Amino acid sequence: MRTSRLEAFSDGVLAIIITIMVLELEVPHGETFADLREATGIGLLTYVLSFVYIGIYWNNHHHMFQLVDRISAGVLWANLHLLFWLSLYPFTTAWMDESDLARVPTTVYGINLIAAAIAYYVLQLRIFAAEGPDGPLRRAVGRDLKGKLSPVIYLCGIVAAASGSEEREWTSWLAVGFFAVVAILWLIPDQRIERTIREAEATG
Amino acid sequence: MRTSRLEAFSDGVLAIIITIMVLELEVPHGETFADLREATGIGLLTYVLSFVYIGIYWNNHHHMFQLVDRISAGVLWANLHLLFWLSLYPFTTAWMDESDLARVPTTVYGINLIAAAIAYYVLQLRIFAAEGPDGPLRRAVGRDLKGKLSPVIYLCGIVAAASGSEEREWTSWLAVGFFAVVAILWLIPDQRIERTIREAEATG
Amino acid sequence: MRTSRLEAFSDGVLAIIITIMVLELEVPHGETFADLREATGIGLLTYVLSFVYIGIYWNNHHHMFQLVDRISAGVLWANLHLLFWLSLYPFTTAWMDESDLARVPTTVYGINLIAAAIAYYVLQLRIFAAEGPDGPLRRAVGRDLKGKLSPVIYLCGIVAAASGSEEREWTSWLAVGFFAVVAILWLIPDQRIERTIREAEATG
Amino acid sequence: MRTSRLEAFSDGVLAIIITIMVLELEVPHGETFADLREATGIGLLTYVLSFVYIGIYWNNHHHMFQLVDRISAGVLWANLHLLFWLSLYPFTTAWMDESDLARVPTTVYGINLIAAAIAYYVLQLRIFAAEGPDGPLRRAVGRDLKGKLSPVIYLCGIVAAASGSEEREWTSWLAVGFFAVVAILWLIPDQRIERTIREAEATG
Repeated sequence: MRTSRLEAFSDGVLAIIITIMVLELEVPHGETFADLREATGIGLLTYVLSFVYIGIYWNNHHHMFQLVDRISAGVLWANLHLLFWLSLYPFTTAWMDESDLARVPTTVYGINLIAAAIAYYVLQLRIFAAEGPDGPLRRAVGRDLKGKLSPVIYLCGIVAAASGSEEREWTSWLAVGFFAVVAILWLIPDQRIERTIREAEATG
Repeated sequence: MRTSRLEAFSDGVLAIIITIMVLELEVPHGETFADLREATGIGLLTYVLSFVYIGIYWNNHHHMFQLVDRISAGVLWANLHLLFWLSLYPFTTAWMDESDLARVPTTVYGINLIAAAIAYYVLQLRIFAAEGPDGPLRRAVGRDLKGKLSPVIYLCGIVAAASGSEEREWTSWLAVGFFAVVAILWLIPDQRIERTIREAEATG
Repeated sequence: MRTSRLEAFSDGVLAIIITIMVLELEVPHGETFADLREATGIGLLTYVLSFVYIGIYWNNHHHMFQLVDRISAGVLWANLHLLFWLSLYPFTTAWMDESDLARVPTTVYGINLIAAAIAYYVLQLRIFAAEGPDGPLRRAVGRDLKGKLSPVIYLCGIVAAASGSEEREWTSWLAVGFFAVVAILWLIPDQRIERTIREAEATG
Repeated sequence: MRTSRLEAFSDGVLAIIITIMVLELEVPHGETFADLREATGIGLLTYVLSFVYIGIYWNNHHHMFQLVDRISAGVLWANLHLLFWLSLYPFTTAWMDESDLARVPTTVYGINLIAAAIAYYVLQLRIFAAEGPDGPLRRAVGRDLKGKLSPVIYLCGIVAAASGSEEREWTSWLAVGFFAVVAILWLIPDQRIERTIREAEATG
């Protein structure tokens, strides 16, 4: 089974997700910069965050499938499972945005992020299973420090968001900070961060 | 005539259908889990169901066209006919969801499901006709137990939904149950279910 | 210059146009078949009509570019010009639908149809110019009876729609009838209609 | 790393951007040409402008990547950065349109245009870096007169828009005029304008 059509379909879904999020951005009713800030303040921030996330998933998906030759039915469904969680990003992003980073919506956004991360991990496992014990992807992924670190940071963000209350509104910002850290972690080119971590391990 | 562009166009349409359904999910107005449940309760359930259906159609479409070499004008139009019924999924899903699984909307959803199934069957027949009496798809499809069983279960769901009344609201849930059974039937990998049926036939 | 990316981009735009029209379909507020008929009555009819039109354009576009090897900058822009008029279909369809086939919206819809037909014709001319005096597309298109007949029928529809008044509401239906005739003309497989016309010419 | 999937993903995003802008066009509430003019007057104008811009970016993107063989992680992210600014076009176009070309929205639209132009330039630099000092794209781009002229004209437009006041509403139209000039500059086939400029330099 060729991977080209799976890649084309995934590209289509990711392209639509990344673009329809802008439809959730509320067009300001007034004509001033203050109206723009009021209408989109948090919206633009969360849009950028979710845009970067989808970009990272597309990027990693792209790299992963360059090493994949044959796919099983399990890989097809694991891929759709990943796309399902990613397709909820516009929805959870819009809720978090419209509620001005309220406690529950921010927690739900974090759960969406971690669910997509788990779905990506499951997809990787299905590909490992399809390619056999010594496949090229398995060797390329290696210890996968980022992949193991990300859910931990997501979890920190979810706990931070969930621990908020009316007096402590900064917890949502802390949560968004954790979520942003994961995005930055993936934006830094691989070799550099791996080398950084290796050096830290050597000196630490 | 090459199949690549037909596949690319179908992928595009299916990718858009599967993604725009999330636009129909109503963003909760409040900030609590109760608001989320109220706003999306049935919406999320029906979204998952329709997502899985489109995933199954993409999956089957993908498999089918791997065995197709040449397409006729009839195949092109039969394919568009299938895409037409699938493009109505976001609409019928939204109606069923917004009416809280009322009698008529659930019945109409079932009619949409069976219409797509028939369109898929017609597409298969057009491909059979284009490839001649001993084509590879005809041999691969074989007896096509799932394909013959699905409309029967859909029909059960439609009858269940249509038989509802104000006193008997559970009929809609029964209908959704029937529709979910078809989805599960297609999610189980082919070989296993075929073997199961074969064994059941041998022992029965 | 390769045609593959022009085809992929056009496929993407056409796939989106054909799918977002369903977003214009108003989800009924009630739960009965009467609510469905009230909410979508004309909407579903015009949706089918526009769906078939986009399908025909995709089909013809697909056939045309199978005969095209090299494209010029002029072809690229003529193609975008065609996509522009087609991208207005969801808008003009929605207006015609929401106004219940009022005089001006139906006329505007017809103008949109004829503008797209002219844009398609211009695209064909640009390809002729790019491929030289004896190109394969020029020979394949031949006398292009359908292509010459369509604008005439569109014009009849536009005149019918524009001649409507409050007393004569049937003129809009007549116009839609003319528009439907063009669609049916293109749905009939080529050879048959050409043969029919040839026989009519022989006996006439 | 192959460029095909980057091109497919970019095509998808550009196709969606160019098509969803039509969703922002407000369907007229009345049934007359006056209603159409009132509802879409500026909307249709700005829609055409943004449509042409996305078309130009697609066109240039298409040409650029025909000369690119291998891409780095930096190119992938520079491409996503470009798509990010382009994905804001429907939003800034809608705001400018709904405010009837008010001072701030028109300025913001200009900022969006210049940001996309800078992102395109950064993408070009990343490709230069990836292909080495004597790459084919670097030689093809040459002095890139248009690319250097465009930001200057955009800046004129932004200054014009920003200098508006309640008494001077024509400044927004001047700004849109500047923005249109850039579009026309790119619509004119390359050789001709380059020759024109060369002749102007020779005689000047």
